[in-house]
Order: sequence, then C-alpha cells, then structure tokens
Amino acid sequence: MGGKMKALVKDKRGFGAVLAEVDIPSIADDEVLIKVKATSICGTDVHIYKWDKWASSRVNPPYVFGHEFSGEVVQIGQNVAGVQIGDSVSAETHIVCGRCMQCLLGNAHICQKTKIIGVDRMGCFAEYVAVPAQNIWKNPNHLSHDVACLQEPLGNAVHTVLNDSIAGKSVLVIGCGPIGLMTVAVAKASGASLVIAMDVNEYRLSLAKDLGTHIVLNPLEQDPLEVINKLTSGNGIDVVCEMSGQPTAMNQGFKMVANGGRVSILSLPTTPVSIDVTNDIVFKGVTVQGITGRKMFSTWYTVSNLLAGNQLNMNELITHRLPLEDYEKGFELMMEGKCGKVVFILE
Amino acid sequence: MGGKMKALVKDKRGFGAVLAEVDIPSIADDEVLIKVKATSICGTDVHIYKWDKWASSRVNPPYVFGHEFSGEVVQIGQNVAGVQIGDSVSAETHIVCGRCMQCLLGNAHICQKTKIIGVDRMGCFAEYVAVPAQNIWKNPNHLSHDVACLQEPLGNAVHTVLNDSIAGKSVLVIGCGPIGLMTVAVAKASGASLVIAMDVNEYRLSLAKDLGTHIVLNPLEQDPLEVINKLTSGNGIDVVCEMSGQPTAMNQGFKMVANGGRVSILSLPTTPVSIDVTNDIVFKGVTVQGITGRKMFSTWYTVSNLLAGNQLNMNELITHRLPLEDYEKGFELMMEGKCGKVVFILE
Amino acid sequence: MGGKMKALVKDKRGFGAVLAEVDIPSIADDEVLIKVKATSICGTDVHIYKWDKWASSRVNPPYVFGHEFSGEVVQIGQNVAGVQIGDSVSAETHIVCGRCMQCLLGNAHICQKTKIIGVDRMGCFAEYVAVPAQNIWKNPNHLSHDVACLQEPLGNAVHTVLNDSIAGKSVLVIGCGPIGLMTVAVAKASGASLVIAMDVNEYRLSLAKDLGTHIVLNPLEQDPLEVINKLTSGNGIDVVCEMSGQPTAMNQGFKMVANGGRVSILSLPTTPVSIDVTNDIVFKGVTVQGITGRKMFSTWYTVSNLLAGNQLNMNELITHRLPLEDYEKGFELMMEGKCGKVVFILE
Amino acid sequence: MGGKMKALVKDKRGFGAVLAEVDIPSIADDEVLIKVKATSICGTDVHIYKWDKWASSRVNPPYVFGHEFSGEVVQIGQNVAGVQIGDSVSAETHIVCGRCMQCLLGNAHICQKTKIIGVDRMGCFAEYVAVPAQNIWKNPNHLSHDVACLQEPLGNAVHTVLNDSIAGKSVLVIGCGPIGLMTVAVAKASGASLVIAMDVNEYRLSLAKDLGTHIVLNPLEQDPLEVINKLTSGNGIDVVCEMSGQPTAMNQGFKMVANGGRVSILSLPTTPVSIDVTNDIVFKGVTVQGITGRKMFSTWYTVSNLLAGNQLNMNELITHRLPLEDYEKGFELMMEGKCGKVVFILE
Repeated sequence: MGGKMKALVKDKRGFGAVLAEVDIPSIADDEVLIKVKATSICGTDVHIYKWDKWASSRVNPPYVFGHEFSGEVVQIGQNVAGVQIGDSVSAETHIVCGRCMQCLLGNAHICQKTKIIGVDRMGCFAEYVAVPAQNIWKNPNHLSHDVACLQEPLGNAVHTVLNDSIAGKSVLVIGCGPIGLMTVAVAKASGASLVIAMDVNEYRLSLAKDLGTHIVLNPLEQDPLEVINKLTSGNGIDVVCEMSGQPTAMNQGFKMVANGGRVSILSLPTTPVSIDVTNDIVFKGVTVQGITGRKMFSTWYTVSNLLAGNQLNMNELITHRLPLEDYEKGFELMMEGKCGKVVFILE
Repeated sequence: MGGKMKALVKDKRGFGAVLAEVDIPSIADDEVLIKVKATSICGTDVHIYKWDKWASSRVNPPYVFGHEFSGEVVQIGQNVAGVQIGDSVSAETHIVCGRCMQCLLGNAHICQKTKIIGVDRMGCFAEYVAVPAQNIWKNPNHLSHDVACLQEPLGNAVHTVLNDSIAGKSVLVIGCGPIGLMTVAVAKASGASLVIAMDVNEYRLSLAKDLGTHIVLNPLEQDPLEVINKLTSGNGIDVVCEMSGQPTAMNQGFKMVANGGRVSILSLPTTPVSIDVTNDIVFKGVTVQGITGRKMFSTWYTVSNLLAGNQLNMNELITHRLPLEDYEKGFELMMEGKCGKVVFILE
Repeated sequence: MGGKMKALVKDKRGFGAVLAEVDIPSIADDEVLIKVKATSICGTDVHIYKWDKWASSRVNPPYVFGHEFSGEVVQIGQNVAGVQIGDSVSAETHIVCGRCMQCLLGNAHICQKTKIIGVDRMGCFAEYVAVPAQNIWKNPNHLSHDVACLQEPLGNAVHTVLNDSIAGKSVLVIGCGPIGLMTVAVAKASGASLVIAMDVNEYRLSLAKDLGTHIVLNPLEQDPLEVINKLTSGNGIDVVCEMSGQPTAMNQGFKMVANGGRVSILSLPTTPVSIDVTNDIVFKGVTVQGITGRKMFSTWYTVSNLLAGNQLNMNELITHRLPLEDYEKGFELMMEGKCGKVVFILE
Repeated sequence: MGGKMKALVKDKRGFGAVLAEVDIPSIADDEVLIKVKATSICGTDVHIYKWDKWASSRVNPPYVFGHEFSGEVVQIGQNVAGVQIGDSVSAETHIVCGRCMQCLLGNAHICQKTKIIGVDRMGCFAEYVAVPAQNIWKNPNHLSHDVACLQEPLGNAVHTVLNDSIAGKSVLVIGCGPIGLMTVAVAKASGASLVIAMDVNEYRLSLAKDLGTHIVLNPLEQDPLEVINKLTSGNGIDVVCEMSGQPTAMNQGFKMVANGGRVSILSLPTTPVSIDVTNDIVFKGVTVQGITGRKMFSTWYTVSNLLAGNQLNMNELITHRLPLEDYEKGFELMMEGKCGKVVFILE
C-alpha cells in the first residue's frame, strides 16, 4: 500500500515512547493489513513503556508496540483465503509455528516458538498493522470497535475462569487489574454463585462491584483468610484465580482454596514463590493450572459468544477512551491504577 | 412417634388416588421422620395417578406416593448422626445400596439396586415421611419450603445441563414440562449464550420466556431445523437437552446438534427410537449422555449454591400452590399441561 | 515432475478396478509429492471396488483410489515449510478447511467441509500421490513402510479406545475387521484389564487371540449377554467399542455395557438403528460417542508413540504383503474376510 | 472376642518400637475384626519408628501402628452388612466423616475430618485389627495376602499415574521408594510409551529396571535436564510423578515437564519449596496436581482390576518377607533403602 502513518513508537531503551510518523507496513503473501479503529493498553505495554527488567531483556527499540486492537481489513496477501477487504477484525497476539508438538496437539497457545505481536514484531498502536491471516478473528458487524479490541485480554480471563467447571462454585479473584476485573465479569456470567474480588486498590475494587462481584476484599483492611473462612463456613474457595503476581497474595490463595479446589494462575510473579507444597497442594488435593494466552481458537469462540449474548458488561470496564495523541495520559492512568481499561480510539 | 396423619393414598390399581388417614410411619435406626411442609407433583406421580402401563408394572397399591418435599425433622433413629431435630431438610429420592460397583465408583445415582421413595416405599404426599438419614439434604434456614421441595427435580435439570461445559454455548431444550423449564433456567444461569426452548404447548413456552429463554420454538408452527439452521449460521446447536421423550423430537434434536456437540437425554421414551447412527452420531462426532437422577451429592451441592446465589427464579416456575386437599385439581393441571410446578403446601 | 506412473484406477461405475498407466500428479504450491512405498486396503476401498450404494452416490470414476500409505517425499510446493525431500511420511486422509467452527475449536476431524484423499481426490494406490503439506505426518526413519502405512486406520482405533480412560477397565470390541483387531491391540497396550473380541468370523477371532485379547466370543455359538454377564459378575462391560455396523450387535452392546459405561461407535450402519433409549442409555447413565477420523494431530501423536514404544504388534496384523499387480487377490481376501491387513508393497 | 495378641507397639516418644502382648481390640457396631495375614511397612511407619518431627507432633504412644494389610474377617459388628466372616479383605486407611463438603462431592479422600488407621487409632502391625466396615475392601480368593496388603500404597501410585490420560505418553518418576517403584509399574501397565525412573539409590534404580522402566537416571551421575532434553528431542516429559519430596528434584521436574504437561505430586516435602511459577508453570501451561490417598473407591477398583489382569508384577517388588518378630530388620532395610517392599507374614 505504501505511504506514511501515525504510530506510537518505543524509540529508545528507556522510559516512555513517542508519537511519530512511520511507514505503513507492507504485508507478506500470507498476511493482511488492517486499519486500526481501537486499541487498548495491556500491562505488557506498560512494562515496555516503563522499560523494566523484562522489557529490556526482550524488546528491541525502535519499533511500534501494542497488540490489542479492532479494525478493518484494507489489504490482503495473495495466499490468503477466508478474509475480505472491509471485514471488521481483531487478532490473536501469539503467532505460532504450527509444527511443534504443542501446535500438533491442539495447544498452539503454548507453542515452543511463539512470536508476539507488539513484542517480537510491529504492533498496533498505529493507524495500520500487518498480521498473519491465520491470526485474524472476524468480528460481527454490530460489535463496536472499542469493545472488540478487548477480546484479546478478555480471552485471558475466559481461559482462566473456564478452564474447568464454574457454575454453582465460589470464585476468588486475586488482583483486580483490567484482566482481573474481566475475570470477575466472566465468573459472574458463567454461573459462579459467589464471586469475591481482592485487591489493595479501592478504585478497582469499586469497579469490581460495578461488574457484579458479590464481595470485595482489601487485605490492608481485613484478614482475607478470616473473611473467606467465615463466608464459606470453613470450607474454602472452590476456584482461585491468581492475577496479582504477588507472592504473599498467591500464598494466601493457596491457604484459602478448598480441599479439592483449583488455583488458576495467569499472573507472572517476578521472583520464585515459596509454596507450602505439602499442606497447601498435596494434602488438600489441589489442582494448580498455569494459564497463558488463549486457546486457538476455542477461547476466542467463547469470548465472542459471551459478548454476542450480552453477558459481559464491558462498557462498564472501559473507563477511558482517548485519542492516540493522549498516550501519555493513558499510560499514566495505567501506572497509577486509576482506570479500568484505557482504549485509544483512532478516528 | 405413633398417631395418625393425613396422606394422599394410591389406593387401588386404577385411575386416581384418595386423601385418607393413615398411620404416621415408624422409623428404623438409620432413618429420620420429617414433618412435610411442602411437596410437589412430579411427572412420575402423574403416571401413578393415571395408572399407565409403567405404573401398573411397578407400584403396589395401596401406598402413599410422592417424593419431592421439604420439611422439618421431628424424630431421629438411634444410629443417625449429623441430623438434628428441627433441621429443615429435603431428600434424595434414590435409596442406594452403597456396595455395588456403581456406588463404589462414585456413581450411586445409577446404583444397580436403587429403591425409590414414593415408588418402592412410602412417599411424601402426607404430613410425615420416613427417610434414611443418608438421603437427607439439609436446607439453609432462609430457603422457603415451596422452593426447597423443588430441589430434587431441579437436580435433574442441573445434572443434565452441567454434565459438561455450558458457558458461551448454544442450548436447545426439547420439551418444556417442569424439568424442561428448570433446564432453561439452569442453562441461562450457567452462562449459555443462546437458549432455545421447544414445545407444542404455548402455555409452557410462555413460562420458558418468563424464565429467560432467548427463543421459543413451536414445531407445529415453524420447522425447527430451519429455525436452528438460521439462528446458528448452519453450525447447529452445541448442547441439546432432550426432555420430551418424543421420538420425532429426539431425532430432530440429533439433526440440529452441531458436529462435536452433545445430546443429553433425561426423558424416557416409551418405545425404542430409530436413530440414524451413521449420519447423526458417528459422522458428526456427537456425544450422547443418558442422564438419570442426581449425582450424590455433587448435584445437590450445585443446586443448593445456585439457589443461594439467587441465580434461578424458581418462584416464577411455581404457578400453583394448593392445599393437599385440592389434589385432584393439582393432578388435572399437570395432566393438561396448564401449569409450571404444582406445590402442595401443608399445614 | 511430469512423467507416467502405475496406478490402480477405479475406471467405471461398476465392480472392480484396473491397473493402468496415468500421469504423475502435479502439485500445488502448498502440496508435496510422495513416492509411495506401501499402501493398504481400507474397508472404504472395498466399498468403492464393489461399487455399492454409498460408492455410487459419492465417487466419480475414473480416478485413482486408496488413502492409507507410507512413502518418501520427492517434490515440495513453493509455499511449503517444515517438510524435506527424502522425508519418510504418511498422511492424514481428511483435508479440512481450517476455518469452520469445528476447525477453530480444535475439532478439525469433524470439519464441515472435509475432503477425503482417495474419495474426493486422487488417492495413493499408485507410485506417486500429491498431498497438502498440512496433512503430512513425518515418520521416524526406523519405522518400516508396511507398518507406517497402517497409522491412519490405527488412528481410528486409538481415537475410539482412548477417547476416555481405559486402564484397569473391561473392553468389548464388537467386530474384528482390521480396525477392530487394531482396537484389541490398542486396548491391551493401554492397560485394559479384560479385553473381549466378538465376531462371527473365526479367522479374525483367531487373529484377535494372537493380538492378545483375553476372550473371543462368537455370537453364533454363544449367547453374548450370558457370557458377559458371567465374566463381569453381572456388572457389564466398562467400554464397548462398536466396529461392526450390525444393528443387532450394536444393540447387544447396549445391553452388555455397564451402568455408567461408554459405547464408542466407529462403525457406519447402513440403516437407522432402533435403540431402547430409556433402558439402555438413560437409566444406565451410559455415554455414547460417535467417533470419526483422527484428532489432528493428537491421535497421530499417540499412534506414533505407541509404535515407537513397541506396544502394538502390527506385524502380526499384516497377513498379506502383495505387489500392486496382485490387487485382485488383495480385494478378494478383504471381501472374504480371510485376512488381517492387506498391504501393497511398491517397487 | 477378647483375649490377647502379639503386636508391634510404638511404646514411647522416641526411636523404635517393641513387640508386645496386648488386648485383641473389641469392635463397635459398625466395625469388623480382622485376623491379619500380611502387613507391609509404609514410609509413614518409618517416620513413626524413627520418631521424627512429624511423628512427634501427630501420634500418641503407646499404640499399635501399621496400616497396610490383608487378612480374614473373624468378627462382625451388629450394624454391618455386606461383609461375611471368612472374607479375605484389606482396608482403606482413611476413615472419613461422610458429611463434609468433600465427602458429599465424592472426594472423601480429602475429607476435612480424616482419621488414619495406625496413626490416629490402633493399626495392623498385630495379629488382629478392628476396622470400620465402610473401609473394608474385599479381595478375590485367589489373591495372595502378601500382594493384597500392597493395594493401599499401590492405590497411591494408581491415583498419581491415572489422574489423567497416560497411554502413549512419556512419564518421569522422581523418587523410587516403594510407591515410586509401583508408579513405574502402573505407568508401564497403563500404556506409557517411555518411562524414566530417577533416584540416587542404585539398588532401587535396579528394581525399577526389573519392573520395566525404559531408562534409569541417577542425578549424581548424569544431568537429568540434559538426558531428558535429548530423550524427548527438546519437548520435555508429558507426565512427571514427584515421589521424592526433595525440593531440588521437584524443581528439576518442573524444568523437565513439557509445555502443557502435568506434574502430579504425591510426596511431602518437609519445607516450603521455592518454585519459578512464571517460567515453570504459567508460561508452560503446566497442570500441577496434589495427590493424597486413594479415591474411594474408584482407585481401589482400578488397583484390583490391574492385579486381576496380571498387569503388575508385584512379586518382583516384594524383596523381603519377614515374620513380625524380625521387625527391627524390616525397619532397618527401609531406613537404608536396601529393599523394595518389606512384608510381615503372620503365621
């Protein structure tokens, strides 16, 4: 297609990013080019923006970051089938090899050679993004772009909550960042009978309430173990979703889970975690699940259906809609935790 | 305890029943005596009342029938632990042996030596009923007896719907008798994204709407296959719950289920059903589940939690509350299909 | 590549086939060309050879049939990655769309747009076959071609047996054609504690014995229900694998399966089957699974591992190795049932 | 029954035990009395014998310890049904409440009020033992008592290995004490395609070989990660069974498990274990299962079937058969690790 576009560029190995004019990406034969309509900030983007240890070990500036988006197809590679110009689409962020053991076994989300959009290649904080056709997810026409761009992180929440049965169960969500909040919404929509949200951030606990959580729990103000013990008559929680990455909170999760319960971990603690394996996992007969990415594409299918069924109030979660030009404000809100989901609206 | 009580007695091998005064049952060492507060009519009771082929081959009048109830414990056998006088309780209807292969494998609901309350022994259409302690399910104090007595059939619905994952899926409920209606409610509460109720009875389709079904489908007025084909873009239904027992409808269910879908059958067709195994089961990779009773007691646990979480609108389903004296009216309503659930309120 | 090759051609709408010289297939950009080393006769090929009702409604002569093979890659399309010239390979027979709901959900084996090698396009009863790269399964170097070509039907057996837990269970295999015999071998290798093979063909029952079945059962000589009842102390069989397609035998399977057991059906009865749904599925709490094809590619992975672990005695199963020129003898053996697996060795 | 019997008594809070004459236990109405024919030493018994920290915090001498046995029923309580005098029986060690959430959900093996035979009440290192009837498992007549007494620990191995699918998979058993060795045997019998046993004890590695393990791995001599990496072409192990309780080995297990694999932990590390949750569980999409006890009684059922099918070579595992009088030798062998299973034969 050629030409120039506006993009948020991670320009150097250090704090921040700049809005710049760059080339519109050209596409390979198996890719499509998408005009981005809405794109949201993920915690990963904040790591890159702040330039922490993980970011400095993984990404190579200068490049365009961002990976959650919704947009319209404007160009199609010559080997691509099943996608039309004008389609409203989002995309799975993980680009997988299709040939490793995991890909062959139907577990492409843990492909051994995963490349990530906006991390290992150009991302979507821009007017256009190029994506392999196999990663495209078509959106229904009636779905607005600001909600559609949330499907990727929503997939993380769905993958975590629905990795085993949930209807009629008690669920504790530890950590109420945007994905934690989505987890609350998914648990409620999927028939959890008691949903508890735990965080130290009162702003986000308040959002959790808006999304329907039964109980909010601030460990700075109440002893979580006592609260849960009382709420569950000493039985503990059926399903713990660990989204905080805090070793102390994770261990509290292990103490609060019921015998025979499950602990599904999506968070990424930055240090090893000391766990009382004997008492908290073995004797309790607990199942611990590491959750990463989204199943391709059964998770996307479920996300799509839950949105189509109006079962998730994602508008409630989008606290800020900004133009890309206001990116500094967007990242500040994320760093302060004073937001639900921040979405950049492009034209 | 001794004394006399009022009871609905199946007195002879023929149509009907009589309200009579009979002895209050005495209890064995491992049983409890319960003062019945509410008891509801099951389809099985209608078979007994009408005295159809099944009834005449199975039950031995004179005896008290009925098996769905809620009440208060008034007497406790000497070997009973864990139940107190004054407890509000319901009961699992299936009395199981505890020693056959199925009982040992955790599948007591398909015990090879099952005896059924109200069928093989005295039932609960009476002021008092004696029940083995192992069958007792304790109700929370705040649960009203009219809703509590529905837990047994509600367990059938929960067993059917939640026998595999449901959140985000499309569900077709074939047959909207009381358990079919409960099935609609459970599917909605458990996160089904599209719930369709099918019946020829407009009264019950209207109740299905009140319970939240997205679409009602009367096969006398619309071609079900065409409707489903359109609704699902030709993909078919993820989960079919067959509650009608009608061979034609069951076969339509097999045509409407998606490749890879499941058909869970709780109904009891009175004749063998001719099924296109090759095209409707094998090529489609369909899973068919026979569902009977309730898992002991994981189904009860889920029922109890869904009620505690206010996730099921069972008051909507109880269309008639009658004194036991009006039993003829109650059975007439059931035979005509002009009711949701009919509950006898005692006292 | 060009040139001519020897091939078994279904030349007309009627009985038989002819060995002829035809063009070596040219490949598309996403295909590979394979020099066939060994190829075996499937029941489907026999239907085509005999020209029965199914064949006449589905295939369009003249064309090359056959779909089970092992060979060596000799040419690679320009968009193909991950396959090398010289690789020893077999192939999944089902060519799937990759975009329908089933493909997206990881159930490509029940893709709504499946095309079948040797049915809907040129097959492998020939010196060369062209196959889409995504269907290729790489074989380890040490695996002989005659065993390697059995992986496709072996995948059917693995898919059937291992669709749920099997270790420590009793298994009844109804129908001991080649896939039934493979089913016996897979059940034994996977820890089934009691394996029973049922057929009316004594030759094949004898092969079942060689493959390790504990008990053989000829319903012409013994009452299957009585035998099973005695063998299982009245409990019935845990897992019934229905590979016969005979309605009477299938119904016996439903009578013999234990309460809570499973009936996995790979066979394709040519007429609807009348089933006592109430007594044989619902009251028994039975699970019925329709099995088709092989999971892509988790089934292939399991097949490959079982062969690598020397857990299946497939040499025992190959009763006849013939040159392609002896095709009439091969098909006669299959039609008479006087064989295990018939493999054509090329070169 | 009355009278005196020979018993191994943990007589004081310190090292050792004494053979003494004590009263034959009297039974409650729901118990049976068993004449012990064979009883084996568990690791738990060694903890009690050695009087380590756990033992001193849990058991109250003087009392008879031991919990693995097989024997003959000699007396039956008056409320007991389904057990006959003369029956050959073993018993589940965990005495459960039957009324807590776990018991109601079919997870009695993690009952919140579990009492353990030989720990919390009189055990079976004696001529007679009293056991609640609900804990009795009937043995087939042909099963010898020395093998029958191994069913309880064998149940631990079966519970660990068969907690998810195993056929065609690679399995690493970390720790080759008696239950680790049983784990090797169960994995082989259940169709694992590659079984690797890891320990520092060459005697036990040699027993692992006798039981059919494909590869033995002594981490003092080889780098386990390198060996596994090579054996699995870099994919890692499908199923890791952690039976060592050593934090270093457990962490090696997490490094060696494949993306999407499972780590089933039966061992009881004495200190918290520091785990790289992010890299070893979350990014790999690993499932960790805490395993305790045996499922009641589905695990017993599987154990029994595997023994009946001659699928486990338990005679190979019993390296020492001793009279109870030689208990000091038995415990010494266990403490030195110079044995497989040590069985006391009574009479």
